Amino acid sequence: MTPLETANFLYKQDAFSQWMGIEILEIKEKYCLIKMPIKAEMINGLKTVHGGITFAFADSALAFSSNNDGNAAVALNCVINFTNAVRLGDTLFAESKLITETRKTGIYDILIKNQHEELVASFRGTVYKINKKVVDL
Amino acid sequence: MTPLETANFLYKQDAFSQWMGIEILEIKEKYCLIKMPIKAEMINGLKTVHGGITFAFADSALAFSSNNDGNAAVALNCVINFTNAVRLGDTLFAESKLITETRKTGIYDILIKNQHEELVASFRGTVYKINKKVVDL
Amino acid sequence: MTPLETANFLYKQDAFSQWMGIEILEIKEKYCLIKMPIKAEMINGLKTVHGGITFAFADSALAFSSNNDGNAAVALNCVINFTNAVRLGDTLFAESKLITETRKTGIYDILIKNQHEELVASFRGTVYKINKKVVDL
Amino acid sequence: MTPLETANFLYKQDAFSQWMGIEILEIKEKYCLIKMPIKAEMINGLKTVHGGITFAFADSALAFSSNNDGNAAVALNCVINFTNAVRLGDTLFAESKLITETRKTGIYDILIKNQHEELVASFRGTVYKINKKVVDL
Repeated sequence: MTPLETANFLYKQDAFSQWMGIEILEIKEKYCLIKMPIKAEMINGLKTVHGGITFAFADSALAFSSNNDGNAAVALNCVINFTNAVRLGDTLFAESKLITETRKTGIYDILIKNQHEELVASFRGTVYKINKKVVDL
Repeated sequence: MTPLETANFLYKQDAFSQWMGIEILEIKEKYCLIKMPIKAEMINGLKTVHGGITFAFADSALAFSSNNDGNAAVALNCVINFTNAVRLGDTLFAESKLITETRKTGIYDILIKNQHEELVASFRGTVYKINKKVVDL
Repeated sequence: MTPLETANFLYKQDAFSQWMGIEILEIKEKYCLIKMPIKAEMINGLKTVHGGITFAFADSALAFSSNNDGNAAVALNCVINFTNAVRLGDTLFAESKLITETRKTGIYDILIKNQHEELVASFRGTVYKINKKVVDL
Repeated sequence: MTPLETANFLYKQDAFSQWMGIEILEIKEKYCLIKMPIKAEMINGLKTVHGGITFAFADSALAFSSNNDGNAAVALNCVINFTNAVRLGDTLFAESKLITETRKTGIYDILIKNQHEELVASFRGTVYKINKKVVDL
């Protein structure tokens, strides 16, 4: 499978990315660009978008980039900096790029922007390659 | 309002925590214990629970603890370590404790365990107190 | 070698921990408590202790705890929250505890306090076990 | 003072950056590029460079970039990913760039490379602006 086919294969099994309404815009090996409109169920108790939604959107970008060569990788840890509030009506874009990798680990940086190209969050994920094929899970 | 009343006030406005099915088990000032059963929409492309769900659950614990004295606080950044896979049928518990705070910032540690008391993730959040009351947002 | 013997073996090779003047107070398997007095060379441009010194002290605690069963582990990533300034004349204490581990990775939490038992920083390190013995490096 | 003058002013007070042998190569507002040769006192118990040295070098880059407009900023928290071992004889370079800022906070990304342009660590720091001038501290 190509990286795009692998990302689409993952997406079809990924119930939560589907619930969030994520759209895959571009896939290259160990890279992706994805999009998500904000909906009413995503709001938190302070009337902005729940930080978990922004994180989950970035985490989906991590999955669609770090697994798309067909080798399964799982997140060991992630750090997210929130830089601007997200609100109902916004549309988010996440771009994930591989920073560096070893045989067993990889580090990805993901920028999350809104429709005005303002950075709303910056995410770094460290993944561990579990030595299994995505199709075998 | 007491810390419990404030947490309940937040919960009533928090559409995503409601969607996740979070239940508040215990509230003390700057502390909370919450619960969430895993449902089918929470699964990812590798057939385990989406890391964004685990993060969002912890982030809700951060909100219900760090805002419950009535002063609004927003997350500046968060780090999460994933230690065990979560699966459909599991029930998660998150306990949030204040580690330290200054006039403007606070640090909370949150342990997320499953129904077997196994640690599935460890979360640390740094919040910034925005100098507004929760009820005024 | 016992955990204490392994920690002492590491310390003898650890030129920077020696430069910092670290003293090992207590070693148990995957645990340590260490101490360090602040000296003039540790000050930064804002006239407090350089954040790198506080981090390095915690990172030494990570090494003396995560390697002391004889199996070499290296830090994959670390996060530190600075909570109080450290000044010339202070003495720091770091206590490192294993939070959770898998066959290949481990997570440690380290609290750094001053001589008044005030928390000055909180550190979390994720290590990767490189499948070599400490004595063979 | 210009950003370069402010960085030099900081460096003259910064005993630990001097001990490390840091050289400032380039300063622009909220940006810096610095250099450091590895020396024998920087080695750890596993015979590579102590992670605290790599962190401290990056933390100095954070200081020389985030304070160089004359307004004092202190690190709230930092995360570092270690990607390649550093050894005696290596020379490190750190480049610090502002990612985003608000009135009170800023986020900087710092890449640390060796003399072969290999990434040895990636660092992200969140600073808090303490509302004081650098020259008044």
